[in-house]
Amino acid sequence: MSPPPPSYVDVLVIGAGPAGVMMGTALSHAGINVRVVDKRPAKVMAGQADGIQPRTIEVFQSYGLAQRLLERGNQMHSLAFYNPRRDGKGVERTSRVPDVTAPTARYRFEVTLHQGEIEAIFLDSMRAHGLEVERPCVPESIEISGDEKELQSRESYPVKVVLRHLVDATLDAAPNGMHTNAIDPSVESSGSTLETVYAKYVLGADGAHSWVRNALGISLDGEQTDHVWGVVDSVPVTDFPDIRNRTAIHSDNGSCMIIPREGDKVRLYVQITDGLQADDHGRIDRSAVTPERVMEIAKRSMRPYKLEFPDPPEWWTCYVIGQRVAKNFSVKDRAFIAGDACHTHSPKAGQGMNASMNDSHNLAWKLAHVLRGWASPDLLKTYELERRKYARDLINFDKKLADLFSGKAVSPGNAEGVTHQEFQGLLQSMGGFTSGIGIQYIPSLITDATSQSLAEGLVIGQRFVPQEIIRIADSRPFEIQDLLVSDTKWKVVFFVGDPKEVREYAVVTAVGEYLQEEKSFLRRFTPKGAAKDAVFTILTVSSTAKDDADYTDIHPGLRTHWSRAFTDDIAIDEKAGGTAYRVYGIDPASGAVVVCRPDGYVSFVCALEDVTKGRLEEYFGKFMIATKV
Amino acid sequence: MSPPPPSYVDVLVIGAGPAGVMMGTALSHAGINVRVVDKRPAKVMAGQADGIQPRTIEVFQSYGLAQRLLERGNQMHSLAFYNPRRDGKGVERTSRVPDVTAPTARYRFEVTLHQGEIEAIFLDSMRAHGLEVERPCVPESIEISGDEKELQSRESYPVKVVLRHLVDATLDAAPNGMHTNAIDPSVESSGSTLETVYAKYVLGADGAHSWVRNALGISLDGEQTDHVWGVVDSVPVTDFPDIRNRTAIHSDNGSCMIIPREGDKVRLYVQITDGLQADDHGRIDRSAVTPERVMEIAKRSMRPYKLEFPDPPEWWTCYVIGQRVAKNFSVKDRAFIAGDACHTHSPKAGQGMNASMNDSHNLAWKLAHVLRGWASPDLLKTYELERRKYARDLINFDKKLADLFSGKAVSPGNAEGVTHQEFQGLLQSMGGFTSGIGIQYIPSLITDATSQSLAEGLVIGQRFVPQEIIRIADSRPFEIQDLLVSDTKWKVVFFVGDPKEVREYAVVTAVGEYLQEEKSFLRRFTPKGAAKDAVFTILTVSSTAKDDADYTDIHPGLRTHWSRAFTDDIAIDEKAGGTAYRVYGIDPASGAVVVCRPDGYVSFVCALEDVTKGRLEEYFGKFMIATKV
Repeated sequence: MSPPPPSYVDVLVIGAGPAGVMMGTALSHAGINVRVVDKRPAKVMAGQADGIQPRTIEVFQSYGLAQRLLERGNQMHSLAFYNPRRDGKGVERTSRVPDVTAPTARYRFEVTLHQGEIEAIFLDSMRAHGLEVERPCVPESIEISGDEKELQSRESYPVKVVLRHLVDATLDAAPNGMHTNAIDPSVESSGSTLETVYAKYVLGADGAHSWVRNALGISLDGEQTDHVWGVVDSVPVTDFPDIRNRTAIHSDNGSCMIIPREGDKVRLYVQITDGLQADDHGRIDRSAVTPERVMEIAKRSMRPYKLEFPDPPEWWTCYVIGQRVAKNFSVKDRAFIAGDACHTHSPKAGQGMNASMNDSHNLAWKLAHVLRGWASPDLLKTYELERRKYARDLINFDKKLADLFSGKAVSPGNAEGVTHQEFQGLLQSMGGFTSGIGIQYIPSLITDATSQSLAEGLVIGQRFVPQEIIRIADSRPFEIQDLLVSDTKWKVVFFVGDPKEVREYAVVTAVGEYLQEEKSFLRRFTPKGAAKDAVFTILTVSSTAKDDADYTDIHPGLRTHWSRAFTDDIAIDEKAGGTAYRVYGIDPASGAVVVCRPDGYVSFVCALEDVTKGRLEEYFGKFMIATKV
Repeated sequence: MSPPPPSYVDVLVIGAGPAGVMMGTALSHAGINVRVVDKRPAKVMAGQADGIQPRTIEVFQSYGLAQRLLERGNQMHSLAFYNPRRDGKGVERTSRVPDVTAPTARYRFEVTLHQGEIEAIFLDSMRAHGLEVERPCVPESIEISGDEKELQSRESYPVKVVLRHLVDATLDAAPNGMHTNAIDPSVESSGSTLETVYAKYVLGADGAHSWVRNALGISLDGEQTDHVWGVVDSVPVTDFPDIRNRTAIHSDNGSCMIIPREGDKVRLYVQITDGLQADDHGRIDRSAVTPERVMEIAKRSMRPYKLEFPDPPEWWTCYVIGQRVAKNFSVKDRAFIAGDACHTHSPKAGQGMNASMNDSHNLAWKLAHVLRGWASPDLLKTYELERRKYARDLINFDKKLADLFSGKAVSPGNAEGVTHQEFQGLLQSMGGFTSGIGIQYIPSLITDATSQSLAEGLVIGQRFVPQEIIRIADSRPFEIQDLLVSDTKWKVVFFVGDPKEVREYAVVTAVGEYLQEEKSFLRRFTPKGAAKDAVFTILTVSSTAKDDADYTDIHPGLRTHWSRAFTDDIAIDEKAGGTAYRVYGIDPASGAVVVCRPDGYVSFVCALEDVTKGRLEEYFGKFMIATKV
């Protein structure tokens, strides 16, 4: 049999875990030619990572996927702390606080749902856009062209990957839910077929032991820790009052973290401190850890409350925490890695899946822009710049948290222990970080913080802050984030104050006129022949009282359709609204222009007067490709 | 060929318009054996009724159907009034007010969406429960047994209906979207088959010219009016600022009502006053009305604003308003009519589809109760009692509105005209009625208003008022209406105050103990062998601060599961909550018990102390059937 002819694809995604399916979803929604392969014969059915942060829920919502997550998942609103009682008889509640402390979060809770269900949300959404994960399928080799000309070309396919499509579904996720890397040697390779794929871009989203990362020769910074954790998913019977809240128990008999799950399920994390032995290579022997031991530690830590496990655990695992970050997230900006392939850390902060999905969310629109010829390939460099900085911050936070969590609690017998104040203090001071809301991308080609003062509440580099605004034409309230969706388009938001005020009318009219001109960014960076709003969505937010506002008062250059003109006033149901200018720190008398990236992050602010001076063309001109006239 | 054997069904629904599909949905969700037949070969594709009131949105939500309605529909938040300018040059805006004035409405807007899309929401939901509409299919005869014993029996099928299943899809909705009754004589009846169906119950939901109503010999009270209306659905081009709001225009050149629709569509209603002639029977000749004429009147009424119709109307109709109510809604409580078969009126108040769907919503759970042997057949008498009263009120309101709307506006040339104040005043004073929120069912077997004073804010006979409460175990906020779903179960809500207060603890404990006893309504009216919560859902709402509340403090008799215990406090996101006791008028120091019907209406209130005195057994005993011991 002759080998099949090679195939070509714009983006090849290797691995269909959280990072992989997010990339598949983002690119398939955008209509980009993409394939996703995975070595597992089926999606994860239980266990593994399961916590979705507030910012990640916002991201789900931006792809139209939050609803199912919220319907099926469990919500954690409260965080409880238990510490030793003074009388030595077990633990008692020290405090119960909001689980999410980021004040601007649209969703003030975390969602837990097992990884298989979360991945299924993406798989179904990909399927609706015509994309199926190909599995089981493993890469055998990857090679990036050394030809500079080829690397520079938008038309070339400089990454060659050989894929092995396995016929038998004999590969499986490792029993304890850990990704394994080695191909199971029992697989009969004779039943498989090889395919050579030429890709414009490749994403390695293949987990902590990433084959892609290794094949590309990317090394990791950081180290294995000696923290060993046991995890059990079960439906316990208990009189513990906070079993449905996220709860951190520091007891004299062990520490335990409770993560309630969908239905009546509960995940319990305990740290294993005794009876562990390292082998000659310093690797800890995990075989000494059994689910019975994990459940026993959880029981002891919860005393005087009762905790019973009528059924065997639905899933369990044990792992040694590594805290590592990849030295590079990309090779030649043609092959990238994302997710656990880039960073590994402890699960306690509930960051793993979130970091992975947000890596892909960050990269997806940049790939789309470059593939479409909208932006220079330099845009892709901002992926590593932005996400590696975040990963390093994550590891540092994780180290602090792990150390505090591993320490014994202060108690009558242990005055040197970790105080409740230290632990709660760290969690709360890092609320912006742990919620994902406070993540701020550093200044770069695309993130220009020069005119921040015109909108102090919309921090350049952070995600656009949610606010309810009213659509003028029909008084319908909208969460502004629902207008800043992940459709790969830039959103340029014009805060125009009150167009009924004659004083400002001239400036706003000039802006409206300018936007209709050939030289404006709208025309200059939108390909000829493409829809007028293919690249940019123009939104206008006035400050006129809703009863007086008419959408017909907004200059036609600033409203391409009646549905694009808004005002900042309290909604008719009086539940929200009327605070956008104040929260954003924008003076209604002078207004401002705010640019929101396709991934929902604020990247540029300027004055209305700057528009006619060409400031927006200057900003976009740094990375967007002007249409040839 | 010998005739096919007769078939048997618990409920046969004739007609798959709004009343029919609501009944099909409610009964199929409940697992009741039901069939729905319709003479139309396909669902409505455009036009017809399209307005969904706030109360009806609540009802959709109670069946899990609101989301799609809200996603696809247009929302009307504002209501604008235009009246003649003083200078005689056309109209100007007199005021813009909230479209919905009912202060307790959960949804403070109306939704518009074409009837086909609305019916599709139900058809898809029925399909998910295994029920398809059989079409085209027309009834040929209906006969109710005269045998009293048969009529009394729960096992009998006393209604015989002969159905003709048509093979060719030659029947169609009448061209102007009006239901026709006569079977199209062009249909070749030789290609059709006859079926004899024996039903326990039949519902005639077959429109204004109901075949079922006629066959049952039910007459109509009321009369045809001389109000003739023209309606056009189109995508107009206009500079009229309120084209996306519900707008009532009273001009010297005609009256017009604007109803914005999904997408850019707009429905325009105009009253035709000139050039109409009646035939010998007093019937008005509608052929003089053309869409061009309707559009011309709309254009004139909107001056000085421009209104253009670049494309022919998508749909149009013309009708003479009849204001009639059927004398009976039932024959022997075995055959019922619902929807337009019971009441016809003008479309301006946007009531038609709402009244129809709420007829079925009212009747469905009663049929389910009687069919399952949970309740006495007397329960069915409350359908006509409750819904006919509402229908009469609707006709009275419609008469007032039609008269005001038909009158010319006050203007410099017409001092005798209808003032803006009169018109706006009527609409706003009737806000509870037009929104559906204020509908109050009169005292009956099931509606016992004796202890209203313990919860003045939950008016017996009205729907349960929405409020956000917090689930104790996980601090998750819930809209209480989302716990009072349309699952045919009674909801008994125990407002227990603060169980941490020792003073009340004894009373609450006594209630909890009582509910676990054999004599309690829970046991007495739940069939042996059925799930413990098959008939009744117990919800408990405490008044403890969320940070102190533990679900384990609620007596086990009052929480069958951790998810059923709530407290009245502000939510963690501080957006809502903490006002339920106050809004409901319940004193936290004494508490109260509130019974909510399966359709979401409050039907009984008593004191906590009354529970152990048997007041709930007394209430339910009037219509529920006690389990044989």
